[in-house]
Amino acid sequence: MAVVGTGLIGTSVGLAVSRHGVMVHLLDQDETAARTAAALGAGVAGAPAERVDLAVIAVPPSKVGAVLAEQQLRGLAHAYTDVASVKSAPARDVLRTISDPVTFVGGHPLAGRERSGPLAARADLFEDRSWVLTPTQATSQPALNRVLEMVALCGAIPVVMEDQAHDAAVALTSHAPHVVASLMAARLQSGPEEAFRLAGQGLRDVTRIAAGDPRLWTDILQANAAAVARVLRALNDDLSAVLAALDDLAAAEPVREGHSVMRIEDLLRRGIAGLDRIHGRRPGAPPGQVRLRVAVGERPGELALLLARLAELGVGLDDVAATASPDRGVLFAEFGLSAVRAESAWRALTEEGWAAERLHAITVPEGPGGAAAVAPLPPAGSGAPSLDHQVEEERQEALSKP
Amino acid sequence: MAVVGTGLIGTSVGLAVSRHGVMVHLLDQDETAARTAAALGAGVAGAPAERVDLAVIAVPPSKVGAVLAEQQLRGLAHAYTDVASVKSAPARDVLRTISDPVTFVGGHPLAGRERSGPLAARADLFEDRSWVLTPTQATSQPALNRVLEMVALCGAIPVVMEDQAHDAAVALTSHAPHVVASLMAARLQSGPEEAFRLAGQGLRDVTRIAAGDPRLWTDILQANAAAVARVLRALNDDLSAVLAALDDLAAAEPVREGHSVMRIEDLLRRGIAGLDRIHGRRPGAPPGQVRLRVAVGERPGELALLLARLAELGVGLDDVAATASPDRGVLFAEFGLSAVRAESAWRALTEEGWAAERLHAITVPEGPGGAAAVAPLPPAGSGAPSLDHQVEEERQEALSKP
Repeated sequence: MAVVGTGLIGTSVGLAVSRHGVMVHLLDQDETAARTAAALGAGVAGAPAERVDLAVIAVPPSKVGAVLAEQQLRGLAHAYTDVASVKSAPARDVLRTISDPVTFVGGHPLAGRERSGPLAARADLFEDRSWVLTPTQATSQPALNRVLEMVALCGAIPVVMEDQAHDAAVALTSHAPHVVASLMAARLQSGPEEAFRLAGQGLRDVTRIAAGDPRLWTDILQANAAAVARVLRALNDDLSAVLAALDDLAAAEPVREGHSVMRIEDLLRRGIAGLDRIHGRRPGAPPGQVRLRVAVGERPGELALLLARLAELGVGLDDVAATASPDRGVLFAEFGLSAVRAESAWRALTEEGWAAERLHAITVPEGPGGAAAVAPLPPAGSGAPSLDHQVEEERQEALSKP
Repeated sequence: MAVVGTGLIGTSVGLAVSRHGVMVHLLDQDETAARTAAALGAGVAGAPAERVDLAVIAVPPSKVGAVLAEQQLRGLAHAYTDVASVKSAPARDVLRTISDPVTFVGGHPLAGRERSGPLAARADLFEDRSWVLTPTQATSQPALNRVLEMVALCGAIPVVMEDQAHDAAVALTSHAPHVVASLMAARLQSGPEEAFRLAGQGLRDVTRIAAGDPRLWTDILQANAAAVARVLRALNDDLSAVLAALDDLAAAEPVREGHSVMRIEDLLRRGIAGLDRIHGRRPGAPPGQVRLRVAVGERPGELALLLARLAELGVGLDDVAATASPDRGVLFAEFGLSAVRAESAWRALTEEGWAAERLHAITVPEGPGGAAAVAPLPPAGSGAPSLDHQVEEERQEALSKP
């Protein structure tokens, strides 16, 4: 194999595949960078004597076309891929400049760090990350298979996409967020020194990715300008509305106060709905989920004890709610689990002396009055423990199909 | 003590001070919340029989004035503080509504989580965090001292500020970042499902704080509207400039390409300069710093070995650069350390067989040609190891004073 461009990504590819005994030739126009990558264990510095199976062109988006054409002319490899985070513009360059599009597969590993250069490289950088491949109709199957093998050796998960769909997706999930982080970070240049005593983890998180290499990121944003502008324009519309609302609230305009507050709360709620899409929460409980309810004695620390036990049983503490039944006056911790896990959690808690009961969340299709109805099961200890797992699951399934 | 409002912050205060044996009475208009906090170990639910030393009013900013007036009328405590993240508007409410401003000290612990409610509370939430106090001229010293004691029991660091300076600071470091996170998160409502396979840690970090309680945050933004609008308006100006540049680049306007690229790169660079203010990096090396240079053999993995050793010696790997001297052709790892630590690191590396040498970074005052000059010391092994520490440090000091 060959890696052309031994920055963070190129060197990490070298480290990852070298672990599997693959011979990697490292090339970089900056010779020190190639030798640094070699000294890290990413391969050997310098061009191979013979044509290699695969060359990874790990250079910024605007240079992919030219570097690829040059290496193809030199006969470096049987197949080529790149790692640029924009795919359609480089593909256009490639088709314009190279003699043989059959051997090229566009690629983009979804991995990175704020630090750049070979010293930041890690052999496990790509493990369990998505690695997008954008083969065209011209791409040969042997070329695609060579790239798929390299992706597998890096421990990544290949995702085949159209280049334009890829570019729209990363504009939303990576490029626009980078600009947003930079916009906020740029504001930090103003403000008195003492203000930064009040800076917490939230500010650090919002601005963290703004630390990326400005040249590389300018290149990325230029290559994907139209798609990034689409996302930022919509964001700008929301920002203008929020600014108008804040101005009204600052001026304490009583007539528009209700409207302004609504505007702001609306944005914050849409933000939460957006977050649900990346954290994989679905609106409403997933079908077949069982809710458990555990009574808590009111001795100080008893609820803390239960929460610790629930965490051990794999219950997400975000989903635990505290409730109290008005008629009985008892305090409960309530949470949802898949049917199978709920059964074992229920058994464990009951054996340990907690008063746990199962509630079924029966999902009802959307429509008028379609909110989930919760029907309590008989309380714990009334025969339920003898229920066969299989039967229980079938019953769950029957209940979840209205 | 009493805590009025047993959400995340109120319950965490109760947990923190209860550890030190302080009796805490927990009050909340939602009785379940107060009992939940008690079951967690934050104190006892219900009002005290006698006046307590201190009451912490842990309710949203817009409610502080009314709740405080009510509790003061009831004679709940000898002194009062709040925990709202906006200080001047609540202070105005307080002065308007309460009978006795002497007993009140505004407060704001710089701690929080995306999760809200008592179940998210932690006894160590405030440890080593700043806790702003905004006493007025009316505030009595005994009241201030009671609040300072509570802050100390929570393990936090008190910071006394004017309320308006506080509000401008948190607009920049907390409230505007929250809006920015929500603006980006709201964009995630659009976009096809497959786009989110490409979402990485960067997107999660940028948007994480948008998960905060929308009602509470609307209340905060309303209470600090003018200061937040000032930050967001400046951000909006930058965004407009970036959008115009992206539009030009998308249209591939050759005349304006250079200008557009510059605009974008300028924003990204200003973002990095802003980050430096929260990560405490200073422009240029601090005075008295010594640079070390370690020669690296080019056996694969040797540099990785050195980097691991440097991390053990407390060298920040961000600051390690790979260099090569053109005349000698050897590869080096180069980094800076304080004079004292450089001495011990140099000894350790030399004893382990690394060829390490010290370079002095002589800081020169700003002005024409004022870049730091680097003068190499004699190479390792030529007598330097016998240098007395004290002498070496004095020499460092002399060198760093031009």
